[in-house]
Amino acid sequence: MAFELGRGIAQRDAVLICGGLTGVMEHAARGARAAGGLTIGLLPGDDPDEANEYVHIAIATGLGHARNAILARTADGVVAVGGGLGTLSEIALALRNGRPTIGIHTWRFDRDRRTEPELPIAANPKDALDWLFSRMER
Amino acid sequence: MAFELGRGIAQRDAVLICGGLTGVMEHAARGARAAGGLTIGLLPGDDPDEANEYVHIAIATGLGHARNAILARTADGVVAVGGGLGTLSEIALALRNGRPTIGIHTWRFDRDRRTEPELPIAANPKDALDWLFSRMER
Amino acid sequence: MAFELGRGIAQRDAVLICGGLTGVMEHAARGARAAGGLTIGLLPGDDPDEANEYVHIAIATGLGHARNAILARTADGVVAVGGGLGTLSEIALALRNGRPTIGIHTWRFDRDRRTEPELPIAANPKDALDWLFSRMER
Amino acid sequence: MAFELGRGIAQRDAVLICGGLTGVMEHAARGARAAGGLTIGLLPGDDPDEANEYVHIAIATGLGHARNAILARTADGVVAVGGGLGTLSEIALALRNGRPTIGIHTWRFDRDRRTEPELPIAANPKDALDWLFSRMER
Repeated sequence: MAFELGRGIAQRDAVLICGGLTGVMEHAARGARAAGGLTIGLLPGDDPDEANEYVHIAIATGLGHARNAILARTADGVVAVGGGLGTLSEIALALRNGRPTIGIHTWRFDRDRRTEPELPIAANPKDALDWLFSRMER
Repeated sequence: MAFELGRGIAQRDAVLICGGLTGVMEHAARGARAAGGLTIGLLPGDDPDEANEYVHIAIATGLGHARNAILARTADGVVAVGGGLGTLSEIALALRNGRPTIGIHTWRFDRDRRTEPELPIAANPKDALDWLFSRMER
Repeated sequence: MAFELGRGIAQRDAVLICGGLTGVMEHAARGARAAGGLTIGLLPGDDPDEANEYVHIAIATGLGHARNAILARTADGVVAVGGGLGTLSEIALALRNGRPTIGIHTWRFDRDRRTEPELPIAANPKDALDWLFSRMER
Repeated sequence: MAFELGRGIAQRDAVLICGGLTGVMEHAARGARAAGGLTIGLLPGDDPDEANEYVHIAIATGLGHARNAILARTADGVVAVGGGLGTLSEIALALRNGRPTIGIHTWRFDRDRRTEPELPIAANPKDALDWLFSRMER
């Protein structure tokens, strides 16, 4: 699924920015590369060599999970995939910054008297990207 | 409620660290000061004078919401009060860092096949602090 | 010398903020404590227990040397002691932010057609603090 | 001069990373683009639209001058051009991180009993890049 997301992002002529490490981040970068796309890894550590092999541009932030805030400022749109509390923090900040944001198999969250925006959930990568790209203007 | 939390933290001889601005952050700092406590404000901006008047030590991070990650590393325990997506990002990072964390009138969140820890919810400040201080070792 | 600086800062009823680790940072914190002062350590790592034993409030930034920028925003005034390239980066940012800044046994730097402010150099801790406190208004 | 540096970096098939704003940063990015290169802007603010028009990838750090530390971790090599105290902080951190670093019309700095590395100074962009690329291994 992450591979298909990365591939779909590149096929839509967008640049993939992700956390640059293994797992979902690596599969997405591999997918973007398979479609000839450009990939950016926003690493938590201070060594550019920590990036997975599919990352073209490794930004060694050295900030740990504070780098999630940079992703939520930099991306024109966000697809959140799967679990992890770091992912939840990214979703929260991306929504807060008004970035179009959609999830696949990820967190649901709510509170009483909520005024904050909802996180839409897509059934598959194609639906997620169709929704996302229709809302990104840059 | 935030006032009572701040007061309770100071009465238990702990230092209050919060975001340093208005609203919940100011009420909590005011409560801690009322009980003779020490208060730290971890500001998003780069001007120490942005802190509310109840903050003794204003740390001007200049990081925006990336400062939430610092709070989640620095605090020995966290009480999350009320709404806001910045608060949700702090809860996520505090749980991720293994800090004892409890909520009052705040977010509920879940996902399928969750392996991440739960956020306990307290009915009032006293219950929240009783739970929190029983779990903090430092 | 660092011990005397820390002691002098506390004797002038100011709070010491430093990098929180060993060497100059530890001697300064020890001096401030000896005079009954309050000490803050702005740590590069993400573990508050890394602070030296004379730090009251350990802020675990997790930012590495990016935390130097926070010190240069937070301090009302800066005394730079000794060498190290991290110290040079702090001097540069503190001067840039318009904070009163003075050095002891530290870097000299210049460039052609300089428009940036000079770093005054003091012969001893007392002179440094006399100069610094005469220029701090907060 | 900045234009020639950017162009030379692209001609050597390297990616230009800079602060993304105006002045030297914009001239360098314009030079890299003129030679068909890829340009990254590591912005101090939280709006990607702040980048100059020659930046392909705008990373909106939202960290202010703390982003200088990220540049000093991310770049395989650094050419420092001209003045500014932010530039001095970048030189200091890049040298500290062991990155090959060279200056043109920029700061000179020294201290007694110095153990830290020297900043070599080049007479022109070509000499700077010849020196830099001979020392970068990645």
